[in-house]
Amino acid sequence: MRITEITITPIAVPDVPLANTKGVHQSVFLRSVIEMRTDTGLVGLSESYGAKRTLDGLRAAALALEGLDPYDLRDLRRRIETTLPDAGGINAPTALADHQVVDVVYSAFELACMDLRGKEVGRPLYDLLGGAVRKQIGFGGYLFFKFAKQDLTFGPDIMGEVMTPDAMVAQAREFVGAYGFQSLKLKGGVLEPDAEVETMLKLREVFPHHALRIDPMGAWTVPTAKKIVDQLDGVLEYLEDPCRGMDAMAELSAQIDMPLATNLVVVEFEQIFEAVRKNAVQIILSDHHYWRGPTGAIQLGEVCRAAGLGVSMHSNSHLGISLAAMCHVAAATPNLTYDCDTHYPWSTKEIVTSGRPVFENGMLRVPEGPGLGVELDHEAVADLHDLYNQAMVRDRDDTDEMLKYVPDYVRKVPRW
Amino acid sequence: MRITEITITPIAVPDVPLANTKGVHQSVFLRSVIEMRTDTGLVGLSESYGAKRTLDGLRAAALALEGLDPYDLRDLRRRIETTLPDAGGINAPTALADHQVVDVVYSAFELACMDLRGKEVGRPLYDLLGGAVRKQIGFGGYLFFKFAKQDLTFGPDIMGEVMTPDAMVAQAREFVGAYGFQSLKLKGGVLEPDAEVETMLKLREVFPHHALRIDPMGAWTVPTAKKIVDQLDGVLEYLEDPCRGMDAMAELSAQIDMPLATNLVVVEFEQIFEAVRKNAVQIILSDHHYWRGPTGAIQLGEVCRAAGLGVSMHSNSHLGISLAAMCHVAAATPNLTYDCDTHYPWSTKEIVTSGRPVFENGMLRVPEGPGLGVELDHEAVADLHDLYNQAMVRDRDDTDEMLKYVPDYVRKVPRW
Repeated sequence: MRITEITITPIAVPDVPLANTKGVHQSVFLRSVIEMRTDTGLVGLSESYGAKRTLDGLRAAALALEGLDPYDLRDLRRRIETTLPDAGGINAPTALADHQVVDVVYSAFELACMDLRGKEVGRPLYDLLGGAVRKQIGFGGYLFFKFAKQDLTFGPDIMGEVMTPDAMVAQAREFVGAYGFQSLKLKGGVLEPDAEVETMLKLREVFPHHALRIDPMGAWTVPTAKKIVDQLDGVLEYLEDPCRGMDAMAELSAQIDMPLATNLVVVEFEQIFEAVRKNAVQIILSDHHYWRGPTGAIQLGEVCRAAGLGVSMHSNSHLGISLAAMCHVAAATPNLTYDCDTHYPWSTKEIVTSGRPVFENGMLRVPEGPGLGVELDHEAVADLHDLYNQAMVRDRDDTDEMLKYVPDYVRKVPRW
Repeated sequence: MRITEITITPIAVPDVPLANTKGVHQSVFLRSVIEMRTDTGLVGLSESYGAKRTLDGLRAAALALEGLDPYDLRDLRRRIETTLPDAGGINAPTALADHQVVDVVYSAFELACMDLRGKEVGRPLYDLLGGAVRKQIGFGGYLFFKFAKQDLTFGPDIMGEVMTPDAMVAQAREFVGAYGFQSLKLKGGVLEPDAEVETMLKLREVFPHHALRIDPMGAWTVPTAKKIVDQLDGVLEYLEDPCRGMDAMAELSAQIDMPLATNLVVVEFEQIFEAVRKNAVQIILSDHHYWRGPTGAIQLGEVCRAAGLGVSMHSNSHLGISLAAMCHVAAATPNLTYDCDTHYPWSTKEIVTSGRPVFENGMLRVPEGPGLGVELDHEAVADLHDLYNQAMVRDRDDTDEMLKYVPDYVRKVPRW
C-alpha cells in the first residue's frame, strides 16, 4: 500500500464571537480537510488547522509523500522534517504556546495513515492504538463569554451576548439541556476575576454535581490566581493554565492543593520532564493534532501514567473528522479519566456523511470503524471551501477581531 | 480474531559458566516458548524467561486469555493484572534489579499478539511498530570471564577458562573473527578492578576502532568507579551500571564526563523521571522482555529522545524468537544508535526453522515477516523441553552455581 495522491482542502466554518483573554473568535474558523489516496484504492481522512502556516506546511509536505507506505510512520516523519527543516511554529511569535509546524503536519498525516491502515485491515482506529478501554466518550460543555455577533454574512449567531455570570449560567443550562454534559469548563480570563469567581460559584450552585473547570489561558498573576483558588476551594475539578509560563505555574502549584492542568506550558514531550521536576502541573491536556498524532497522544497517556500525572483532552474549533479521532484516542487512553473538551456545539456544520452525532448524557459512542469510522461528505466540503474563498480569512487573529467589539482593547497576558 | 489456545513450553538450553559479579551461569539456561493460537488458524510466537516465577506467571495468565482479541493490548494488560494482582518481581528479593511479573508476562504475550497481527495483515513486526529506520541490526560481542565447564552432561564448553586479560583478548579475537562484531562489551565485576582495566586497555590496543564497553553490574563503589573511569578515559563508548543504585550512579555521574548506561536502576517508565532529575544515567537499555513488550520498548525510545537520553539494547541468554524480536524493535527505534547486546553466540541451539542466522560484520538483517518472520522448529523445542525435564533446573541461581567453582565465594555488591 503506497500513497499516490493527497488532496488538502481548506475550509471555513461559520463561527461565533467566543471570547478569551487574547481576544475573540472571528466570523469563521479555518480547517484543513485531508484525503490521502493509495494505489490500493483506499482514501484516508484527516482534519487539522486551516490557518496559513499549517496549510502551507501541509501543502509543502504533501508533495513529498508520494510513494510513502502508510505503515512507515518513521519515513513520514523523516520526509516532513526534510521538507520543512526550518518551519518553526504554527502560531505568531507572541502566542501563549507554540506548536511546531512539523509536529502539526506530522500529526495530520499520521491520522490519515492510521485511517488507511484501519480501513485496510477492517479495524477501528482504536484497535490500532492498543484497544478501547471505553466505548462511550464523555465530553464537557465548553462555556464561553461571548459578544452578540455583529456580522452575520457567513452564518448566524448562537445565544447572543453572554457577558455576565447569570448569562453564563443560562448558557450552561442550555448546553446541559441539549447535550446532557456532566461537566462544564469556562473559558476564563475575559471578565474581572471577581466576576469569573462569581460565575463559577453560581454554576456550582445550579449544577451541584457537575465537574467544573476554568481556563483563563494565563490571564492571572500568581497572587491573583492564589486568591481565586482560595475562593474556589472545593468547587473546581481542576484549574487550567491560570498563569503564564512554567515557572509561574510551579510557583502557584507550590502554594495550593488544587490540581493544575495545562495545554500551554507542556505541548511537547521534551517539556514534561521540566514540568515534573518543577511540579508545575498535575494534568496534561492531550491533543492528537499536535502531540505527534494519535500514536503520540497515546504515548502521552503512558508517559503521564509513569509520571503520576493526569490526562485530559484539549480542543480547538473542529468538525467531525477531528471529533471521531478524539473519540478513538480517548477510547484508547486508559488514564484519560476527565471529560474531553470540545468546541463542537459552537458550530452547526458537518463534513462527514453521518452528519452531526447526538450526544447522550454528554457522551458520544466511539465510531466502530474501519479506521476513523467516518466518510467525507464531499458536497459539504465543497460548500465550506466556497465559504473559505468568500470569507477571505486566511489566518486566525483573535486580538485583531476583538477590536471590532472593543475598539480600545489591548492584549495583555497576564491581565490581572 | 480471538485467542483460542496458548501453549507454554519450558525449555533448557545448554549454557557455559559465564561469570558475573553475582556468580556464574548454570549448566543450562531456561526459556519459555509461547504459541498463541487463534480461531482464524494463526499461531503467534514468543520467547521469554523460563525460571519459576515467570513460568508460573505465564501459565496462570494464559488461562485468562481465552477469547482475547490480539489487537486489544489494554484488555491483555487488564486480564494479566487481574490474574496476578500480587505477583511481585520475577527475581529474588536480593536481585540487583527487579522486573515485575506482570510486566514480564505482559511483554511475552504482547509479542505473541503482535506476531499474530503481523501474520494476519502480512506485515513484518517492525511495520506495526512504526516502520524500520534500519534493516541491518548491529550487535556487539558480549565478552565474559568464564570458568572451564566442569559438568558436561548437558552440553560442551565453549572456549574453556577465560580468567585473565590475555585470555579475554583471545576470546574477543575469536568472536570478532567469527561474527565480525564492530563493538565489544565485557561483563565486568569479576576480576579485581585493575585486571579489568588492563583487559579493557588491551582490548583497545588490539581493536583500536571497536566501540568498547564494560558492565560490572554495580560491583564498584563510587570512588573505585571514579578511579576506573580516569584510567579508561577515552577508551569506552559508555560505562554500564558501574555502581549499585540510582544515587550512587548519580554521584559518579556528577564527577565524570563518560556516559553511564543502565539496565539496573531504570527498568520501568516510572524510574526515568528520577534518573533524569538526578542525571544518574545518560543511556537506558531497552529490552522488549520487560519494557512492556515491543510497543513499550518503542515508547522507551521516544521517551529517551524527549529526555535527551541515549538508547541501547539489553540481552539475557536467548534463542531465535527473542533474537528476531530484538531485531524488529531495534529496526523501529530511531535513536537506538548503539550496537545491541546479545548472548546469542554463547549457545549453539536454535528453535526456529530457519536455524541460526549468520552475522555479517556483527550485523543481522531484520526478518521480513510476516510478524516476527520466524517459524517454530517443533522438534528442536521438544528436544530442549526434554532437556528441561532431565536437567531439573527450575530457577536461575548464579550465586549458588558459583560455589561449585569457588567454594568460599560470597556474594557482595558492590565488591570493590
